[in-house]
This record gives sequence, C-alpha cells and structure tokens, in this order.
Amino acid sequence: MAATLNRQIRLKSRPTGIPQAEHFEIVEASLPQLADRQFLVRNEFLSIDPAMRGWVSAVANYSTPVGIGEVMRSFAAGTVVASRHPDYAEGEKVMGMLGWQEFAISDGASITRKVKEVDLPLSLSLGVLGLNGVTAFFGLLDLGSPRPGDTVVVSTAAGAVGSTVGQIAKLMGCRTVGITGGPTKMKLCRDDFGYDEALDYKVGNLTMTLAAACPQGVDVYFDNTAGAISDTVYTRLAIGARVVVCGTASVSSWDPPPQGPRVERHLLVKRARMSGLLVFDYARRFEEAIARLARWVRAGKLRYREDIRDGIEHCPGAIAGLYRGENLGKRLIRLHTG
Amino acid sequence: MAATLNRQIRLKSRPTGIPQAEHFEIVEASLPQLADRQFLVRNEFLSIDPAMRGWVSAVANYSTPVGIGEVMRSFAAGTVVASRHPDYAEGEKVMGMLGWQEFAISDGASITRKVKEVDLPLSLSLGVLGLNGVTAFFGLLDLGSPRPGDTVVVSTAAGAVGSTVGQIAKLMGCRTVGITGGPTKMKLCRDDFGYDEALDYKVGNLTMTLAAACPQGVDVYFDNTAGAISDTVYTRLAIGARVVVCGTASVSSWDPPPQGPRVERHLLVKRARMSGLLVFDYARRFEEAIARLARWVRAGKLRYREDIRDGIEHCPGAIAGLYRGENLGKRLIRLHTG
Repeated sequence: MAATLNRQIRLKSRPTGIPQAEHFEIVEASLPQLADRQFLVRNEFLSIDPAMRGWVSAVANYSTPVGIGEVMRSFAAGTVVASRHPDYAEGEKVMGMLGWQEFAISDGASITRKVKEVDLPLSLSLGVLGLNGVTAFFGLLDLGSPRPGDTVVVSTAAGAVGSTVGQIAKLMGCRTVGITGGPTKMKLCRDDFGYDEALDYKVGNLTMTLAAACPQGVDVYFDNTAGAISDTVYTRLAIGARVVVCGTASVSSWDPPPQGPRVERHLLVKRARMSGLLVFDYARRFEEAIARLARWVRAGKLRYREDIRDGIEHCPGAIAGLYRGENLGKRLIRLHTG
Repeated sequence: MAATLNRQIRLKSRPTGIPQAEHFEIVEASLPQLADRQFLVRNEFLSIDPAMRGWVSAVANYSTPVGIGEVMRSFAAGTVVASRHPDYAEGEKVMGMLGWQEFAISDGASITRKVKEVDLPLSLSLGVLGLNGVTAFFGLLDLGSPRPGDTVVVSTAAGAVGSTVGQIAKLMGCRTVGITGGPTKMKLCRDDFGYDEALDYKVGNLTMTLAAACPQGVDVYFDNTAGAISDTVYTRLAIGARVVVCGTASVSSWDPPPQGPRVERHLLVKRARMSGLLVFDYARRFEEAIARLARWVRAGKLRYREDIRDGIEHCPGAIAGLYRGENLGKRLIRLHTG
C-alpha cells in the first residue's frame, strides 16, 4: 500500500439544474490508515450516470443529497489493494458506491457486489453488467412485460440502458423501434444494437415517423426522457400498453414542476399502465440478472459500447456532457492507466 | 304488447365538451313488430353515467360515437314484455345497452346480463350491482392491489363508483380518505360510506388537509377526476403506490389536450404505478363481482345511495348535471311509474 495521496472530486456548490463542471473541484486528500474491518480499493473506472443529477439535487429524491465538500457519490469499479476485512481479500475486484476518487476506503457497506466475471473487462461491471444492464433487464422484463411480437419503443435508444433494453426485447421476439438523436446514433441503433427501426427525433415530425414505424401502436415504451418525445409516444400507445418510466433526461429542472399534456386519458382509453422503476428495489436479484446478461455478452448476443475518457479531471464536466447527449455508449472515466 | 308508441331521447347535435340538454331531443317513434329472435324490453330505469360524454364525443374513444339522430346510448334495466327469442322469456329482468327510450327491441346483443338478484331493487343493477359496482370492484382489487393498513384515497368519493370503492377498501382493512365537494357530500362520506376521513376540495388547502389525513402517504389512489385534485394527490404518493385512472370528470374538454404537471418524476421517485381501467375488459368476470357485491348489500356491509328522477324528460340535462356534481348518489331516471 504505497499510495498516501488520493485525488478526489468534491461537490463545491449545489446545482439547481444539471450539474456543471463549475459545481465540482479536484482536491488531493491524504489517505488515512485502514482500521480493523476496512479495506482499500484502487478505483479503475468511475461511472457517469444520469441519476447523479438527482444525487446532488436539493429536491426530495431516493437518497440524502451529497453534501457540499463531500466526495461526489458515484459508482466505481476497482481492485482491493489492501485489506483488514475478513470478507475482502487483496486482488479481488469490486463494484460499488466508491465515489469520484482514486482510492476508496470501505467497510463493505459501499460495495454493491464483487465482480465475478473476471473473464470480461472490469468496465462492464459499471455498464452492461452493472446498474445499466440490470435496469434494462428488470425494467423491461418486470415492468414492461413484453410478449413476442410486441412493438417495443425505446427512447435514448443508443444509451447504456436503452441499447440493452432494445437488444433484450429483440431476444424476446419483439419488434424494436429506437428513438435517438443524430445520424451517428441512428447508425449505432441499426448496426450495433439491432433495432428494427431507428427514428431521429431531431429530424422531421416524430408523430409521423412514429406512426409509420408503429402501425399497430406501441405495446411497450421504455422511457428515459419524460418530455416531448414521451408526449408523442403516449398518443400511439396500443391497448394494454406498458410504459416504463426509467429516467427524465429531457427535464432540465423539476422546480417549478414542468408541465405537459395530461396522461390520464391515454391510460384510460388504452387501459395502459405506467410504472416508475428504481433498480435498487431489485437489489436482491442483481446476481440473477448479471449472470444472464454476462451469458448473452459472452455469446455475442448482447452488444455494448463504451465511451471512455482517461483521467479523473474529466469527471466534473461529464454529467453535463451526458445530458447534452455527447457520449456514444456508456460514459466512463478510466484511472491509473499508466 | 299494447304499446305501439315509444318515447326516445335522440342526439340532435354533437357536443364539443359536456353534453347539454340542447344536444338532445325527445321524439315519439312507433314500435315495429318483433322479428324472429327478437324481444321487447320495457325500460324501468335509465342510467346516467359520466362515460356517456365519451359516447357522444367525436374524439377517438372505446367505441363508435352515437350518430346524430340516433337514440342516445345508455345502460337501462327493464322487463321483457314480449319475446320471439328462445333465450329471453316474458317477465325476465334484463340490464344492457338499451338506450334512453321507453321500449327497446333487442336480439340479445345489447343485453349485458339478466338480472338475477330479484330480491333486490332492479335499479341496483344499474348502480352498485351494475357497472358502477363492478368498476369499483375490479378497479380497486385488480389495479389498486390494496393491502390491509393501506391508505386508500378516493376522489368523487360520494359518487356511485367512489362510494363503493371506499366501502370495499374498508372491508379489506384499509384506511379510507374520501375527497368530495360540499358539506352534504362530506356528511354522506362519513355517515353513509364509512370513510375514516372526508376532505372537501372546495374548502381550504387540499395539499395541507391531504397531508394531515395521509401522514404515511397515499398507497392507493382511485381517481375519477384527472385534474387539480389528482395533481395534489400525486405529490403525496407513498413508495409503491398504485393509481387507478377510472375517469376524467374534471376535464371539460380533451381538445386541445389539457396540460398539467408532469407525472413521470412522481412515478419514478415513488416507484408508483398508474393504470387505466376500462370495466368492459372484465366482462367475463362480471357475475363473479356482482354476486359478491350483492352478498355485501344483503348483509348490510355495502351501502348505496340513489338519486332518482321520474320521467324521461329529465334525461337531456342529466349528464351535464352529473358533471356539475349536483347528484347525491347514483343518478337514475325512472319510467312507467304510473
């Protein structure tokens, strides 16, 4: 355990909307000695997720907001490099809420899981074999209840969650329609993620293109946007449709509450269901999902794309970049590449 | 079969919002002879339901809109007074889509069911033992998934559906909170329908009174309004809440689509579910529900209230009256009282 210095990204001020680089600062902290039942993780990958906006928001959320001056809360994956904990041995790979920092001291409470898929890249434990994959898996299968032949529409279709949703839906025999922005992501949707149709919400009239792509209506809508795209999809729901509310990427601020067309009549006329998903509710079933996802990855049936930046200095601006849609695939920060 | 004249209420012009008296006209039609496999029903009670607004609306709905000049579509209950149909005998009581008219000729297709509860008033087959009761039964039990100890909030709590929902929820061991308007309905909710709390949306601040009435949040929200009352309730949902979207009484017109605060974040943060209910989807299970409801009525465990007007001339203005909330209990028109 040679390291004594630990570079960290801390929350400097509280954002009201989407966190920007200016809301964070990089500091060098000293690493304390390990106490009994503690271990030290050297982070190799830091995760950038849309949900991180909520973690720094003062508005009520799942969890206590990150305090000013605290290390930014984040998923990360790394290796145990020193341990005084009986359950964690040096050399083991772990994934958990280890924060935007080079090293994390843990007593195990911050660990989501040990990474068992050591034949696959560790970075996957933050994406397709991590919360993104598990979110897609349970969101689609549990809340979306897809059936073979269903038309499944996915917003943010090329993203880390959306691309997995689209592929699992295909594995289930569904017809998949991905909504994304720009020609590069359109190509990704078609070529890499196997969508039957890709729609560019930035071009033309989505009401028209969606109607053409979904002549039988939309049986399952997996959404990460909660804005104008959704309002269009709601008008095309099939009878008995299931809407999975997974994210709210298109809403820049919740205060004051954003307005939109009321959904009740769509739900009533179509006898549709709209369900909010929080993947942590499925914590006890993560291993079941990850084992299945890993099998699909190994078999070449589930493709993923990563967008990796090297160096912790890319963290502060990374959430805002995500909301601008500039990433192609799962955005990760890689540390210790030297 | 002495009658040869049949007074009917026909649709005169198409309403854009809530149908008013002026959209209908009373005519006297002659009764044709019964053909083979037809029978004649003398209507005793005509039903007035909020859903009838949708049946005359030009906007897409469950069913083809009533045409101009056609008899107003309506549930009604009556007695078979002549029959050339092997399955329907003179003297049998039937309930079905028999229209706003004194007599209906049917070949059976318009009949929802034969009324078997001949020990109870026939009018109940249009209310607590009819679509209203069945809507409450399946909406609450199937879509609301109530559990003992849950807080169940009901809008239009004193209405034909709402009052039944509240009482079934009580039978299930739930805590019930009814939202209604005005002191008379408040008293009905408390004294007749056994709500633990009644809230008057017309008095004070519903956000405050609802919070006080639901300190643990709202586990089930059974709604018939889809407006400002709902927007308030959505902010109080408990984790895992179920919203049953049963009606849209507070929306005066769907064109242009009414706006409201977006619901996605509530659903996401609370992992809540919102489901649209169309009771006709449960058609195969009506008898199961009605048998149970009738048992509760006979045992004095399920109370109902009717608001009966005598004479077909009360039909044209009755839907608008319903939307003004002027009825106390199930609104029915009684015919042939002499």
